[in-house]
Amino acid sequence: MSDWQSIPCIERHKEFLEKITAILIDCAFESVSRENPVLRWREPNHLQNIINFNLQEQPRDQDDLLEIVAKIFKYSIKTGHPYFMNQLFSGLDPYGLVGQWLTDILNSSVYTYEVAPVLTLMENTVIKKLLSMFYKDENGSMIGDGLFCPGGSFANGIAINLARYWFRKKIQNNKNISSTNLVLFTSEDAHYSILKWGNVCDIEVVLIKTDEYGRMNINDLKVKILEEQKKGNYTFCTIATAGTTVLGAFDPLIEIADICEQFNMWLHVDAAWGGGLIFSRKHSVLLRGIQRADSILFNAHKLLAVPQQCSLLLTKHKSIFKEAHSKHVPYLFQKDKFYPTDLDVGDKYLQCGRRPDVLKFWFMWQAKGTSGFEKHIDHLMKLSALFKEEVEKRDGFKLVTNPCFINVCFWFIPSTLRIQNSIYDYEKRLHEVAPKLKEKMTKRGSLMINYQSLHEKPNFFRFVIQNSGVDTQDIFYVFDELENLGEST
Amino acid sequence: MSDWQSIPCIERHKEFLEKITAILIDCAFESVSRENPVLRWREPNHLQNIINFNLQEQPRDQDDLLEIVAKIFKYSIKTGHPYFMNQLFSGLDPYGLVGQWLTDILNSSVYTYEVAPVLTLMENTVIKKLLSMFYKDENGSMIGDGLFCPGGSFANGIAINLARYWFRKKIQNNKNISSTNLVLFTSEDAHYSILKWGNVCDIEVVLIKTDEYGRMNINDLKVKILEEQKKGNYTFCTIATAGTTVLGAFDPLIEIADICEQFNMWLHVDAAWGGGLIFSRKHSVLLRGIQRADSILFNAHKLLAVPQQCSLLLTKHKSIFKEAHSKHVPYLFQKDKFYPTDLDVGDKYLQCGRRPDVLKFWFMWQAKGTSGFEKHIDHLMKLSALFKEEVEKRDGFKLVTNPCFINVCFWFIPSTLRIQNSIYDYEKRLHEVAPKLKEKMTKRGSLMINYQSLHEKPNFFRFVIQNSGVDTQDIFYVFDELENLGEST
Repeated sequence: MSDWQSIPCIERHKEFLEKITAILIDCAFESVSRENPVLRWREPNHLQNIINFNLQEQPRDQDDLLEIVAKIFKYSIKTGHPYFMNQLFSGLDPYGLVGQWLTDILNSSVYTYEVAPVLTLMENTVIKKLLSMFYKDENGSMIGDGLFCPGGSFANGIAINLARYWFRKKIQNNKNISSTNLVLFTSEDAHYSILKWGNVCDIEVVLIKTDEYGRMNINDLKVKILEEQKKGNYTFCTIATAGTTVLGAFDPLIEIADICEQFNMWLHVDAAWGGGLIFSRKHSVLLRGIQRADSILFNAHKLLAVPQQCSLLLTKHKSIFKEAHSKHVPYLFQKDKFYPTDLDVGDKYLQCGRRPDVLKFWFMWQAKGTSGFEKHIDHLMKLSALFKEEVEKRDGFKLVTNPCFINVCFWFIPSTLRIQNSIYDYEKRLHEVAPKLKEKMTKRGSLMINYQSLHEKPNFFRFVIQNSGVDTQDIFYVFDELENLGEST
Repeated sequence: MSDWQSIPCIERHKEFLEKITAILIDCAFESVSRENPVLRWREPNHLQNIINFNLQEQPRDQDDLLEIVAKIFKYSIKTGHPYFMNQLFSGLDPYGLVGQWLTDILNSSVYTYEVAPVLTLMENTVIKKLLSMFYKDENGSMIGDGLFCPGGSFANGIAINLARYWFRKKIQNNKNISSTNLVLFTSEDAHYSILKWGNVCDIEVVLIKTDEYGRMNINDLKVKILEEQKKGNYTFCTIATAGTTVLGAFDPLIEIADICEQFNMWLHVDAAWGGGLIFSRKHSVLLRGIQRADSILFNAHKLLAVPQQCSLLLTKHKSIFKEAHSKHVPYLFQKDKFYPTDLDVGDKYLQCGRRPDVLKFWFMWQAKGTSGFEKHIDHLMKLSALFKEEVEKRDGFKLVTNPCFINVCFWFIPSTLRIQNSIYDYEKRLHEVAPKLKEKMTKRGSLMINYQSLHEKPNFFRFVIQNSGVDTQDIFYVFDELENLGEST
C-alpha cells in the first residue's frame, strides 16, 4: 500500500503509528507538567524558520514526519498546563482525550442511524439526560430536544433563527414579518457572537445596560422593549447570559423570564460558560430560573473541561428543530428504509456532515460519573474563592468587581502606582500595566492569563480556571509570578 | 491525581493510555480489512442492550472502560473499509489520523497567534496555497482570503451572507435593502444546505432546472433572473455546483460566470465534492472557470479523504471576511498586544472558539506531497470509469445518466424485471428493488452503498469512492455482491 493511498497497511504504517502514539502519550504528560513552560514564545518569522510550513510537490519520509510532530508539539501552547488560565477552556482530560482518539478512528458523521448507530444512541442519551437536568424533568422523559453544535457562537445563531421561526408562526402564522422589523435584546456584556449572528439572520440587536457586576439591567430592558414596540418593531426575543465572558456575571433569569412571558418573547439563555454548574448541587443555584428558558446553550468544553468542542443547544420545544430546519432530503433521509427513521437525526440540523462531539463527553461521563463532574466543579469554585480572597488580602491587587463565579477580575498595581490620588494620568498608566506584564510572562513562558479593558475600565486581568488539576499552590504561584514580573516593570 | 481531575497523571493514566492506543492501532487495521464486515447491524433496541448508554452517578473503572471502547468500535460502521461506499467521505488515512490525534493532544482553539502560533501559521499556509491553486495566481501571493469551516453547509451559509454584504455595499452603499427583496439562484440538484441557510439569512432561493446530466440549465437561469427583476427583487447571487451530491454533475461555470458578470451578481461555487480535482492536472478540467467565482467552497474531507471535517471557504475579495464579520472584541483581539495582531485571525470568523481542522490536512499534505493527492484522485477517477464500463457491460445494470465524475448512478434490475414493456407497474417495482437490496446488504454486513430517487426517477444506487485503498477487485466485488443479493430478492 503506497502512502498516497488513503487507508493504512500493517507493513508500512504499524511501526509508524506505534512510534507516534508513544510520542503523543509522552506529550500528554509533558504538556501538563509544572516543570515545563506553558509556552515557548517565538516571533512569527522565527517560528517559520523553525518549522518549514511550505507545501511541497513531493512527499516527506516518515522520519521527517516524526520530527515535525515533535516540533509542532514543542512550539504549541500547552492548554492543559496548570498555568494556562487564558481562555474559557483548559485542561487535558485523559478520558476526554481517549474519547477524541476513538472518535478519530471511527471517522464518522452523525446524520443517520445507518451510518452512526452507536453515536446516534449516545447523542440521544446525553441530550435526554441534559434536558432532564436543565429542565428539571423528574420523570426523565424527553420533554424537549437538543443539538450538538460546532461551538457556542453557532448555537447562539441557531437560537436566534429558532426564535424568529417560533415568533412568526405564533403571530397568526404570519411568515411574512420582515426581519427588518424584528428586534432582539441582550446585554452589553453578552457574547459578541450574538451581534455577528444577528447580522447573519439580518436582525437588529439592541444592547441592554449592565450593572456594576455585569448583570443585565431589568429596567433598561423594559424601557427598550417599549421603545421598540412604539417604533412598530416586533420584540421577539431576549438573550440572557449565565456566566458572561469577562466578569462571569449571571443575568437575573427569573425577572427576565417574567418579562419574556409578559411580552410574548422567546427566552434564550447563553449558558455557554456557566451551564456546567448544573452538575453541582451546591453551585447550580446560580442557574436558578434557567428551566424557564425556551432554549439553552451549554458548552461542555468550557466548565466541564471536555475537549474542544462540545456545545449543546437545548430547547423545551420538542419538535421545533425539525419544523424549522428540515428539508426532507431524499438522498439521505429516505422514508422507505427498513428501520425507524426517527433515529436519522441529521435533518433537524443546519449542518449535513457533522463531526461527532458526543463520544468524548459521554466517555468522560462514564469515567467520572455525574459525581465526578460535581467534584471537579466544586474544586474549581473553591479555588476561585481562594483567588478572590488573596486579591483582597494582598497589597497591589484590587478587585474590578465582586465576583460570584469562577472569573476573578483584578488589577495588579505596581508599587509606583499605589497612591492613586497623587499620580497624574493614573488610569492611563494602570491601563499600560497589564499588556506589559502579559508580554513579560509570555516571553518567559511562565504563565498565561488574559487581560482586557471593559467599558470605561482600564486594562485588568481575568483569572479563570477549568482545569481541576490546578491546586492551592498554583494559586499562590500566580500571585507570586505577577508580583515578580510586575515589580520589575 | 483523581479521575475527576482534568489532567492526566503518570501513575494513574500511563498504562491506561498505552493499552488504549494499542487497541486503537489494532482497530485502524481491522476496520479496513476485507476479511472483516463493513458493519455489524443491530436494531436500536438490541444495540442498547449490548452497550449500556446510561449515564450514572458513580464512575466506572478502567477495565470497564477498555471493554466499552472495544464495543463502541465493534458496532460502529467501518467508514475506512473498502466496501463503505455510502457517503461522500470514506477511507482512514494514516497520516490524517495522526494529524487528528496530535490535534487532540494540543486541544486548542484557533483565534489568536498567542494561543495557537503553529496552527495559525499552518492555516495561513494552506489557505494561501489553495488560493493560488483555485485562482491560478502564479505569483502565489495572497490574492484573497479563506476560512476553515465546520462543514460545507456552514460554508455555503457564510457565502450567502457575504454575497448579501457585498451586494448591499455595492448598491450605492445601501445597507437598507431588505432581505425580503433579495433572491438567490441555484439548481434544483444543488445541496439542500442552500435552502436551509437561505432560511437562516431570510433570503428566498429560486431553483433552476437541470438537464439530463444534472447540470444547471442556463436559459432557465436567465429567464428566472429576469422574472425576479421584473417583480422588483434584487438578484444578487448565483450558487453553482461543481460536483452535485447525487449525480456528480458540474454546472457550466463559464456560462454562469458570464451571466453573473452581466447581472452584477456574486458567484459562489459549491465545490464541496468536486473541488479536490484541482490537485489533478488531468481532471481539473472539470473545474474550468472556477477562478471567476467570488467564493468557493471546497471540502478536503470529501475527495481528498482528509478526516472529518475539513471545509474551506475561499474568496478572491481579500478583506471581505473582516469587513463583514468583525466586531473588534476587546477581550480577545486587543490592539495593544506586543506582536502583529494581523495574525489574530479569529475576528474574521463567525465562530469564536474553533477546533483546528488544518493540522490533519497539512500533515497529510507533507506526507503525500501535492503529487500524492494527484495520484489518489487519478486512481479514484480510473476506478469510477471502470465501474461505469461494467454497468454498461453487465446484464441487469443500467446507467441513470452518463457520468463525468466519480458518481456512477445505476439501477440494478433483477432478471424478473428485465423485459420492461411486458411488466405492469415496472417503475413501481423497480423503485422497491434498491431499498430491499440495501436491507439485505446491511444485515449481511457485506457492503454499504447508498440509494435514492431523484425527480421522477425510481430508486437507484449511487456508486462513489474517496478511498484510494479500493482496487479493481473491489469494483468487481460490488457487482458480484449486488447480483448475488439481487437475484435472491
